[in-house]
Amino acid sequence: MTGAPVDQEKVDYITEAARLAPTSSGLHPFKIIEISNPDIKKEIQPLAYNQSQIVDASHLLIFAAYDEYTQERVDSVFQQQAEERNLPHGFADDYKNSLFARFQQQTKDQHFEHAARQAYIGFGLAIAAAAEQRIDATPMEGFDNAALDQYLGLNELGLRSVTILALGHRDTENDWLVNLKKVRIAKENFIINK
Amino acid sequence: MTGAPVDQEKVDYITEAARLAPTSSGLHPFKIIEISNPDIKKEIQPLAYNQSQIVDASHLLIFAAYDEYTQERVDSVFQQQAEERNLPHGFADDYKNSLFARFQQQTKDQHFEHAARQAYIGFGLAIAAAAEQRIDATPMEGFDNAALDQYLGLNELGLRSVTILALGHRDTENDWLVNLKKVRIAKENFIINK
Repeated sequence: MTGAPVDQEKVDYITEAARLAPTSSGLHPFKIIEISNPDIKKEIQPLAYNQSQIVDASHLLIFAAYDEYTQERVDSVFQQQAEERNLPHGFADDYKNSLFARFQQQTKDQHFEHAARQAYIGFGLAIAAAAEQRIDATPMEGFDNAALDQYLGLNELGLRSVTILALGHRDTENDWLVNLKKVRIAKENFIINK
Repeated sequence: MTGAPVDQEKVDYITEAARLAPTSSGLHPFKIIEISNPDIKKEIQPLAYNQSQIVDASHLLIFAAYDEYTQERVDSVFQQQAEERNLPHGFADDYKNSLFARFQQQTKDQHFEHAARQAYIGFGLAIAAAAEQRIDATPMEGFDNAALDQYLGLNELGLRSVTILALGHRDTENDWLVNLKKVRIAKENFIINK
């Protein structure tokens, strides 16, 4: 990436796609930490194997998932739904209670894994939105999650980093990957028809 | 959903979006089981809490992730990349070996969790593609994964079901959800700027 800034309007379009993503029971258990400050990007680089995209990107979108499903978090989702949809008080209580009872049988790590998967739905939609806006997006899992969480103070927010989307403008002249063929699993190995 | 069939061309467009999804190290560790046979849908319905979308949908796309990263699976990805890109033999061996060494320190369940997250990137892209084609898509996690795996014989294929995308045409007259406001986390609660 060239390091040139991406219009904030386009970044907003991309994060909006992630905000509107469908998630399990509408829980939307993740947030995006949006980073454009060059000093912060520079401090994050060594936490991500010194990969150049971290500093060459215009914006880093760090997807961070809930570390657990608390009663308060689940309640607030259903509360918001009831308010915005003008539903009678307690409308979805049975569903909410059975959902929460299921969570109570799980460990905190299971909660996090479930939340992380939901973050990946938003991640996929953000990637699609970036392509639509003709903004280059590099999906990155290669970083020290615990160190990044600590650096950004995510633990105090009940969040754990999951994945990064680096947004920027393509450096056509210097990117050795640009002209390589896109390689994907063959269709006949991917789809099983029943 | 009305039960009316979705054009196969549109279904292909949607699964193609998932096939072209970017994944960690290009491993693409998931497949789609595409089901249009009404008898099979009927047999799956009780495994999914008898939800009506399972039989009212035209097609079910079952996203299933690798149960583990074997040496053979990892090798074949790098082999395909080298062939399609005409790269010299052993070009990416250092990277591949360090990747595989990391997987060897993990459990089979950790492999699966990582593969499942990649499946969710494809899932997100398929949801975006369905919206683009104006096909209704219901993301579904509410089913008995182990029972579905057994019914479809996924274990023998080294796969585990992760999530379902039900595709169909909207039943505007009878769907009580159709006119409800879309509720999502507020932007100010979703984005943290740094």
